[in-house]
Amino acid sequence: MTQPQEQVNVTDTTAKLTELTVGVADLLGAIAYGELAAFEQLSRDSASAPNLAGRAALARMAAAEMAHYDLVADYLTRFGIDVEAAMQPYRTSFDAFHKIVVAKNWYESIIEAYVGDGLAADLYRELGNALDPETRDLINTVLADTGHADFAQREISAAVADDRILRDKLTLWCRRLLGEALTQAQYVVAERDDLATLMITAYGDMSGIAVLFKTLQQRHTKRMSALGLG
Amino acid sequence: MTQPQEQVNVTDTTAKLTELTVGVADLLGAIAYGELAAFEQLSRDSASAPNLAGRAALARMAAAEMAHYDLVADYLTRFGIDVEAAMQPYRTSFDAFHKIVVAKNWYESIIEAYVGDGLAADLYRELGNALDPETRDLINTVLADTGHADFAQREISAAVADDRILRDKLTLWCRRLLGEALTQAQYVVAERDDLATLMITAYGDMSGIAVLFKTLQQRHTKRMSALGLG
Repeated sequence: MTQPQEQVNVTDTTAKLTELTVGVADLLGAIAYGELAAFEQLSRDSASAPNLAGRAALARMAAAEMAHYDLVADYLTRFGIDVEAAMQPYRTSFDAFHKIVVAKNWYESIIEAYVGDGLAADLYRELGNALDPETRDLINTVLADTGHADFAQREISAAVADDRILRDKLTLWCRRLLGEALTQAQYVVAERDDLATLMITAYGDMSGIAVLFKTLQQRHTKRMSALGLG
Repeated sequence: MTQPQEQVNVTDTTAKLTELTVGVADLLGAIAYGELAAFEQLSRDSASAPNLAGRAALARMAAAEMAHYDLVADYLTRFGIDVEAAMQPYRTSFDAFHKIVVAKNWYESIIEAYVGDGLAADLYRELGNALDPETRDLINTVLADTGHADFAQREISAAVADDRILRDKLTLWCRRLLGEALTQAQYVVAERDDLATLMITAYGDMSGIAVLFKTLQQRHTKRMSALGLG
């Protein structure tokens, strides 16, 4: 308060830059671990697919996740950040999510991957909008759909078209996934100071974050409709 | 025998071309299914890796297998052959192999992937030498090492350096893998006429095939040495 105006500005700018850099490493660490976890889920689902076409389709999507993982790892390496160190803080909560939310059949598996990927992509893209253009471009590239949307829409809408009970069950599954994902996301942000800072920088204040979560919810509902659910 | 010499030649050539084409589809079907099976084994191993670095390393190798799978699928599609149909005949015996041979720990898993990949690559490359240059190039590309050799050599030779009992156990495991793989390969060739034809075309006669199997055995021994086993 007693410092001259100019010096305050300089300090603020420096602080902001440092925070932003740290926040970016955090965000990319979360994205990288998300890609690795998505690889693992898709490859598990591939192994339990009902036919050879489904097996190969999911295996190719899993491979695409790892191609994205490589891009993030290379980007972090360029800034001297080790991708494994950046991922480490997210293991517990991401793994907890996958332990709590266990698909009981092929349809639930497909939906879990599709809905989970979609939610994560929406969240990270929104946060990415507040970042420098290069990081934003990287995020948009690595969150590009790996063909899962088309596949999930085709498989699920065909399965539920004439099966009202399956439709209702899968609708409940979708809602549960959203609830668990948002809960888990809030834990992560609460635990990771740098990520919380990044989020508040991007959204101004806590009311902005409420808007963000509402946006995520609306897009989730759209995805459910595309599957023939809801 | 009563036909004029020239007509016999024409018939022979036509027959040979058809057989070669069919044999190639068979061979590429086996390779494609092998890539998919390798993807599945590597992704399972990745999930049980003792650390994050191991998990990511194996996941990236699994992804590389699927990139190779895509190349084979595209090549078959160009010739109007459906990759799933081409893979179908190999499911039973390949899956049987993976059911019989079950790794009991992380080291056995790594060795299984490395030794299995190596044996398959040696076999397919030898057969590929008898084919047209384009198919041969494709085979050599898709059988290129996906980084597994280095990884396996590093992990295993470090683990056995000071552990004689582990070394002996893993040596036995390697020998068992070779035995089961050769047995399974002989079943496959015996069942698949087109593949048997391709093999006999490539090696002239059954004594040629004995030479081929001896070559595979020698290269397997070299791989064991590179792991610090044998």
